[in-house]
Amino acid sequence: MADDADFKIVGYEDVEAKEFGDEAPGVKIRWLIDAEADGAPVYALRMIEIDEGGNTPDHSHPFEHENFVVSGSGEVMIEGNWHQVKAGDVIFVPPNVRHQYRNAGSETFKFLCGVPV
Amino acid sequence: MADDADFKIVGYEDVEAKEFGDEAPGVKIRWLIDAEADGAPVYALRMIEIDEGGNTPDHSHPFEHENFVVSGSGEVMIEGNWHQVKAGDVIFVPPNVRHQYRNAGSETFKFLCGVPV
Repeated sequence: MADDADFKIVGYEDVEAKEFGDEAPGVKIRWLIDAEADGAPVYALRMIEIDEGGNTPDHSHPFEHENFVVSGSGEVMIEGNWHQVKAGDVIFVPPNVRHQYRNAGSETFKFLCGVPV
Repeated sequence: MADDADFKIVGYEDVEAKEFGDEAPGVKIRWLIDAEADGAPVYALRMIEIDEGGNTPDHSHPFEHENFVVSGSGEVMIEGNWHQVKAGDVIFVPPNVRHQYRNAGSETFKFLCGVPV
C-alpha cells in the first residue's frame, strides 16, 4: 500500500507486464490497480497488451469487462461475431457473454480491461 | 440497451459530452459505460475532459476513483498535495480522500474515471 491515504499514481509502463500463459499467446497483462496490492474495493484495472498475431482465449465468465482501447487495432469476438476496434473505442462485454480479443495489425494492441474484484 | 447480448462498442467521441456545471468550470463528462443505459452491473466508466484553465471541484466522497490519463497533462490534488500527471498515467483515489483535478497545459486534459454504480 502507498503512503498518503494509500493513493497511487504510476505510469502504466512502470507496472510489470506478466505473460498471460499458453492459453493466450502473445498476451501480457499489467495489473494497474489491484484489490490486494492497492486496496481497490470494487473493481481492478488492468492493461492487456497483445502482440502482432496474438489472441486471448475464447471464453465466458459470470462477470463483465469494461474496455478502452489505448493503442493499436484489434478485433473483439462477441458470441461468435468479430468486430473491429481501434484506439479510442469503448467496449462493454456483459457477464456470461462469449468473447475473445486478437490483434489485427502490426502494432501492439493495448486496451484497458476492468473487472470486479 | 444494444442488441446481440447487450454488448456495446462505441468510439468515445461518439458519446455525448455533457457540461459538468458551475462547480467544474471547463469540464465535460462522457458516460461511456453506464448502469442505466448499458446495464453495467458493478461500475460505470466515464471520460472527463478538462479545457485549458479548467478544474473539477475540491471534494471527497465515500467511493473511489480509478483513472487513466488518455491525453494532455494535468494535476491531481490528493489531501492538499498536487501531483503532475500525463498521458499513460494511472491514478487510484481511495474512498473518502479529498481530491481535485485541473488542466496544467494548453491541450485538453482527458482521463478515464471509473466509479461504482
